[in-house]
Amino acid sequence: MPAVLRFLKGHGTENDFVLLPDPEGTLALTPTMVRRLCDRHAGLGADGVLRIVPSALDPDGAPYADQARFFMDYRNADGSVAEMCGNGVRVYARYLVATGLARPGRLRLATRGGVREVDIEPGNGLVSVDMGPAVVGEPVDVDGVQATFVDMGNPHAVVSVDSVEALGWLWTTRLDLNVEYVEDRGPAAIAMRVHERGVGETRSCGTGACAAVVATSLRTATPRGTAFDVQVPGGELVVTWREDGHVLLSGPAVLVAQGVVDRAWLDH
Amino acid sequence: MPAVLRFLKGHGTENDFVLLPDPEGTLALTPTMVRRLCDRHAGLGADGVLRIVPSALDPDGAPYADQARFFMDYRNADGSVAEMCGNGVRVYARYLVATGLARPGRLRLATRGGVREVDIEPGNGLVSVDMGPAVVGEPVDVDGVQATFVDMGNPHAVVSVDSVEALGWLWTTRLDLNVEYVEDRGPAAIAMRVHERGVGETRSCGTGACAAVVATSLRTATPRGTAFDVQVPGGELVVTWREDGHVLLSGPAVLVAQGVVDRAWLDH
Repeated sequence: MPAVLRFLKGHGTENDFVLLPDPEGTLALTPTMVRRLCDRHAGLGADGVLRIVPSALDPDGAPYADQARFFMDYRNADGSVAEMCGNGVRVYARYLVATGLARPGRLRLATRGGVREVDIEPGNGLVSVDMGPAVVGEPVDVDGVQATFVDMGNPHAVVSVDSVEALGWLWTTRLDLNVEYVEDRGPAAIAMRVHERGVGETRSCGTGACAAVVATSLRTATPRGTAFDVQVPGGELVVTWREDGHVLLSGPAVLVAQGVVDRAWLDH
Repeated sequence: MPAVLRFLKGHGTENDFVLLPDPEGTLALTPTMVRRLCDRHAGLGADGVLRIVPSALDPDGAPYADQARFFMDYRNADGSVAEMCGNGVRVYARYLVATGLARPGRLRLATRGGVREVDIEPGNGLVSVDMGPAVVGEPVDVDGVQATFVDMGNPHAVVSVDSVEALGWLWTTRLDLNVEYVEDRGPAAIAMRVHERGVGETRSCGTGACAAVVATSLRTATPRGTAFDVQVPGGELVVTWREDGHVLLSGPAVLVAQGVVDRAWLDH
């Protein structure tokens, strides 16, 4: 086993990731390793880990090998396996193009949530991902306020507020939901703050931005296909709820650093 | 200018640093660069930056060049210049020995707070630093409780409590002081939590651990020269208040990763 492990660090609207290139599919990633890498003081620090592996070389990726050359093995910072992450997909695609493993334009990525279509501009341009269909459910009650329920593969409750700044600290609700607080900022512009279940407030949430735009479109009767600017604490996203019901998430994806981690430290 | 900047990441009891080797003394580190590097989501993330430069090649280090070969240029995460950092000195020394720039044993490091003596064990052993003399002042009032005032180059107020766990969240006081809450855990053992001024609660604080042991020694009439175990949220330190009034801080110092940062990102 090599004495070091290669890594990169990147983020999409400050939703940040440790990327681990695994071209041979030989990296046995354990929950302990993920927790150590993501530890913000004792490790590198990140919201999650993206293992970059050819689909054919991974048990979970193999079913998609004929549709997508690469598989995104995504892990949350707590070590658990996750199906999908909208900001993660965009940073993953940025890596593929930056290293010459894929070309700018349309590419397909396999995830545990299925194959995702990604469009990536050259250079440091925007990266867009088809987040799949939004399913709107019955309204839910969030701390006494009516919220729009939107399923984006994970459950969201969207609350309309006068001012996201005036909210102060976002208390944890007892609901098993991600909660988005949305302030109108123009005809197709919103500011959003998000409380992710099990995590707390975060700088950005890809599926949350999608849910917020779906709920806002319904509330304001904005036509499908309108590109919304979504201001999140970590930057700016563009979200479009298409005619076919799919939601397109678009935004920056940045690689910041690369290097090696000491395996003696990681495996101790 | 090279397209990349070399860095390492390390920590001492989870007080973490980005280390920047600058062997030629040519790195013009700006507050903006420091803030970007230390940003925990958009950058690498750290409590501060340690620039590693030969004393003779730095304007602030040159006065010490005949006493200490290397100068510790320490910056806080907010970009401001700092005089000294006990955990930072230990991680800095670990780097020098790990890269062959110094040998295990006694070495001297120049800082803006003067020259510090460091003892470093081989391998991943302890690193000890003479933190200088402790000056005990008049008792101060912290939120209605009497606290021992200790100057370690920076001001500390040490409060004795029954349980550090029972404290809950450490509210910011309006005092311009670092506040340590100390629980007795044995004849020469304490647990400590610390609220650093301008920062909030941290995982560890070197000068805080020293102040806590000085105050505890006085309160419990423990003889000088006794080595105290200090349990902090980020790990364990050993602190000795010597007969000559100097305080010795000892603990682990770990290098976790190394790599390069994209200068286009850093300087944009």
